[in-house]
Amino acid sequence: LVLFSLSEQKKRIVYTILELSPLLDSSNMTPDDWAKIKYYEQYDGFVILHGTDTMAYTASALSFMCENLGKTIVLTGSQVPIYELRNDGRANLLGALLIAGQFVIPEVCLYFYHKLYRGNRVTKVDAGSFNAFSSPNLPPLANAEVDITVNWETVWRANTTKKFKVHTNMNRNVGLLRIFPGINAATVKAFLQPPMEGIVLETYGTGNAPDRQDLLDELKKATDRKVVILNCTQCLRGSIAAVYATGQTLTAVGVIPGGDMTPEAALAKLSYTLSKSHLSWEEKKEMLSENLRGEMTVVPTGAKISLTDSKF
Amino acid sequence: LVLFSLSEQKKRIVYTILELSPLLDSSNMTPDDWAKIKYYEQYDGFVILHGTDTMAYTASALSFMCENLGKTIVLTGSQVPIYELRNDGRANLLGALLIAGQFVIPEVCLYFYHKLYRGNRVTKVDAGSFNAFSSPNLPPLANAEVDITVNWETVWRANTTKKFKVHTNMNRNVGLLRIFPGINAATVKAFLQPPMEGIVLETYGTGNAPDRQDLLDELKKATDRKVVILNCTQCLRGSIAAVYATGQTLTAVGVIPGGDMTPEAALAKLSYTLSKSHLSWEEKKEMLSENLRGEMTVVPTGAKISLTDSKF
Amino acid sequence: LVLFSLSEQKKRIVYTILELSPLLDSSNMTPDDWAKIKYYEQYDGFVILHGTDTMAYTASALSFMCENLGKTIVLTGSQVPIYELRNDGRANLLGALLIAGQFVIPEVCLYFYHKLYRGNRVTKVDAGSFNAFSSPNLPPLANAEVDITVNWETVWRANTTKKFKVHTNMNRNVGLLRIFPGINAATVKAFLQPPMEGIVLETYGTGNAPDRQDLLDELKKATDRKVVILNCTQCLRGSIAAVYATGQTLTAVGVIPGGDMTPEAALAKLSYTLSKSHLSWEEKKEMLSENLRGEMTVVPTGAKISLTDSKF
Amino acid sequence: LVLFSLSEQKKRIVYTILELSPLLDSSNMTPDDWAKIKYYEQYDGFVILHGTDTMAYTASALSFMCENLGKTIVLTGSQVPIYELRNDGRANLLGALLIAGQFVIPEVCLYFYHKLYRGNRVTKVDAGSFNAFSSPNLPPLANAEVDITVNWETVWRANTTKKFKVHTNMNRNVGLLRIFPGINAATVKAFLQPPMEGIVLETYGTGNAPDRQDLLDELKKATDRKVVILNCTQCLRGSIAAVYATGQTLTAVGVIPGGDMTPEAALAKLSYTLSKSHLSWEEKKEMLSENLRGEMTVVPTGAKISLTDSKF
Repeated sequence: LVLFSLSEQKKRIVYTILELSPLLDSSNMTPDDWAKIKYYEQYDGFVILHGTDTMAYTASALSFMCENLGKTIVLTGSQVPIYELRNDGRANLLGALLIAGQFVIPEVCLYFYHKLYRGNRVTKVDAGSFNAFSSPNLPPLANAEVDITVNWETVWRANTTKKFKVHTNMNRNVGLLRIFPGINAATVKAFLQPPMEGIVLETYGTGNAPDRQDLLDELKKATDRKVVILNCTQCLRGSIAAVYATGQTLTAVGVIPGGDMTPEAALAKLSYTLSKSHLSWEEKKEMLSENLRGEMTVVPTGAKISLTDSKF
Repeated sequence: LVLFSLSEQKKRIVYTILELSPLLDSSNMTPDDWAKIKYYEQYDGFVILHGTDTMAYTASALSFMCENLGKTIVLTGSQVPIYELRNDGRANLLGALLIAGQFVIPEVCLYFYHKLYRGNRVTKVDAGSFNAFSSPNLPPLANAEVDITVNWETVWRANTTKKFKVHTNMNRNVGLLRIFPGINAATVKAFLQPPMEGIVLETYGTGNAPDRQDLLDELKKATDRKVVILNCTQCLRGSIAAVYATGQTLTAVGVIPGGDMTPEAALAKLSYTLSKSHLSWEEKKEMLSENLRGEMTVVPTGAKISLTDSKF
Repeated sequence: LVLFSLSEQKKRIVYTILELSPLLDSSNMTPDDWAKIKYYEQYDGFVILHGTDTMAYTASALSFMCENLGKTIVLTGSQVPIYELRNDGRANLLGALLIAGQFVIPEVCLYFYHKLYRGNRVTKVDAGSFNAFSSPNLPPLANAEVDITVNWETVWRANTTKKFKVHTNMNRNVGLLRIFPGINAATVKAFLQPPMEGIVLETYGTGNAPDRQDLLDELKKATDRKVVILNCTQCLRGSIAAVYATGQTLTAVGVIPGGDMTPEAALAKLSYTLSKSHLSWEEKKEMLSENLRGEMTVVPTGAKISLTDSKF
Repeated sequence: LVLFSLSEQKKRIVYTILELSPLLDSSNMTPDDWAKIKYYEQYDGFVILHGTDTMAYTASALSFMCENLGKTIVLTGSQVPIYELRNDGRANLLGALLIAGQFVIPEVCLYFYHKLYRGNRVTKVDAGSFNAFSSPNLPPLANAEVDITVNWETVWRANTTKKFKVHTNMNRNVGLLRIFPGINAATVKAFLQPPMEGIVLETYGTGNAPDRQDLLDELKKATDRKVVILNCTQCLRGSIAAVYATGQTLTAVGVIPGGDMTPEAALAKLSYTLSKSHLSWEEKKEMLSENLRGEMTVVPTGAKISLTDSKF
């Protein structure tokens, strides 16, 4: 089900409803399905209904696929179906429609439980509560309480005059691997075997992993054959930094620091970047380190004092 | 570094310090190291200093390894080392010592940022804040604000008169696999290949995974050769339930619902259960479904109304 | 508008609607109006719709007026009227009806934004958000997320077999006075002048006030003529304690510590207690120090270590 | 105790300690004491140690008294005294010193529990927790976690080249009156009697009060004799708005809407404004409606949709 909204002369908003065929359970979504979501020049804003289970993945993917986006795209859904007497679907849908119809927020957003988030910043954090999503490293773009308030300084500005374009041929040979105590070299090797072209490595804390030589060797072998490994933290909040001894060892074997990206955003960015076949491996690696759609925080110089820097 | 505390006649508390040799970075901890942490009859309570990165994994493992525990064990650590001028190590250590010396809380606990948690309920949620840990599905055992208040009704009571025993030979052939959109059968197959004996499958929401036949076939093949697959949610909060169509499909191929266990606790429970060589495969599967150390919530009948149950 | 619900043989719940005449804006409610809310033997549970502005005051008052309560009373309302397209009234009403119809929680409760609170524990904390109420010193009685979960160990048990009775003639000569820097004796004197019979004094922190002699003299003169002064903190959370030098001075001039009662609950308790004309002044003061309806926390001995107690 | 810090050539920070004589318990602070806190040209930043009970009042008052401030002033304190083994004073003091020494944040700030707040935005919300202060309507100016991050877009910019000046003769004939159900005209009259020149009226929700004629008459009589009445909400969060029928009635009798100011800030602003003897009554009333030190939010047009505005 895809639902479109059109703002007309600030007087009335006309909504058109389109439905995806066949309807999919969100846990069955694949990168191929993301490409089915087409953009229509004739509308001013878009609301997409989606299952909650994979909505953070889809929102992340769409944010990269939509190049030079100039219109508002809002994904929303519900924890309890809208046909139940007591549900959150009605409130989520109404809020999403109101925002998509009233504001120009040129991002792929996710609206849930009275908050509008940047799509590539969210993760589903609660399986049983109406407050199911969180944007751990970026405040919401808007709050829809008694009044709706947009935090304009947080809204992403692409600064581009290029034409909107949907990039559809996402690379599917990507994966997520979470580090755990006792993970062995054989498991890492098996996971990284061809046709895998890139993985998100979910490490400890600010980017740490065991520095056992056999593990590092497997990672090195993979990066040597140009498999891209992007380092993200398995913590809900926080960022990768290259300060600990163990973190630097990962950089030494070719792992790329992923900043404060969610695993969902990192996976989508990998899938997007690796599909840019005209780019060299070095260009792809550089692209992964850049902030493309507001998916990672670039800290302005001087805004932060690290405790390790300060010789107090 | 291992630090012990002894409560003597409620007048003075004598603390003894023991140090692990060699000292380990926490991201290098493996199940073998957990077994090095020995219990001493001569003390009444214990404080263990540990790196934060894998502390949730260690706390989970210790909670299972310590059978018939009757004394307080508190793990703590810091985000900023205690030798820095501005640090959280001093406050964490003091709080842990005070609690271990004053109260009998017969659990493996984790103390951080003024809260005492059940060790097998925590997960590290923040890589950059002093409030680094969260116990998403259980309230803290104690709050150490201006006053220290213990929530006694939450403290685990083993109801046993058996002798304390450390179970050390944990099974290492266990792993964590996170489901993501586009995960393919080859990856799942590679991850489940021998010598893997059990995995925690991090699924969507309340326990959903893609129901593509090739994926399910690989899971089925694994459970057929007695690999144990435990279903946990990749959401921070919430529980596995067998309500959605896709969730039931997992149960059909032999996957065991993991309730509201954290992935860290589930991994430790797998490692512990699979090492009980005198048990049959069925007994191990049953053990995994039981609440052994307060690591999962057993909902009392009548305390909950599900929206899908109520014909309002 | 008063709405009643009747649970019948666990099969169907029949709801009856009654309306208050005339309808009142909640900011115009007075203690006289609280007495208009009558109890009907023929129903099993009650839902009362009320404006949010004074709902915490009304809930507190009703909790004292309803003596030996054995049925569920739920107050609810909304920040945005139910006739608006986007509103919180529908969800609040549905949740309140469901709870009142399904559970026996023999308290005056307040239901708002997916949570059921004890009525004499809440305060309105947000003028512009749907999450308008907070119960700062007691966790919710129930959470109505995807599932409805009742925290039965928190539910108040009166342990009485006496007959239910509504006490209606509340004392109106009571008031709230908030301490501020620079408050002078003349203001305090004016506020305490007859016919004032009792006031809630909102003090700083754990119960502190300026200890200037002129101020204390005015308070002493009032308590000498049997005006009751109940000490509550102006902090949202926390409790009155007699530890600081300044706090003890208040006790010395006859001020009664109010524990962790909200100002709303303290005012209602004063109004209720002072109307018990058969009681002596000493009995009234003792009654104010007791936990009558779960409105204040009685700390069990041994559950708490105060930092000032411990000679660490 | 007053503690000053001096930043020198970005290499070393020299701290000088000055002590207030006599030392005061914070609950005994009056407006006269605020004026004792003098400014010294020879320092670059200031840290003031203060009791927590009235620190929000003092921070608010200082923010108005310091005209054309160009340097950082940080107030801090502790819930547990710094000489106790387990305390929050050490961490609060260190954080305040580090911030005052490293950054130019030209505001009167309050630092507590790892957060730097604007001084006239805070209120003490917890009597028993280390996290004692809240800034309900403005995010923190800085977060001092593992790293210290300043939110520069939130820092107040006075845009003035005028010389710094301390305004000391604050008006003391001001007070705080909280509305409650059953408040009667006699109490209001008594509170507003001369020499009272201005009061903060703590109303319900978005600025509502009972609209009984006798109450309104007393307010009208006061404003007629040029007593200034400033309307603030008794809710922790939110803002006064003139939307409800009852709220408009207050405006009709001369009450000034106080926006989202805390009662502490409103009281200080009244005390400051009423002491500007060269201003006419109308100029004072206008000054109270303006944002002087970032103490109230001025909503930019177009950033907000009110549900009552939208004809959806």
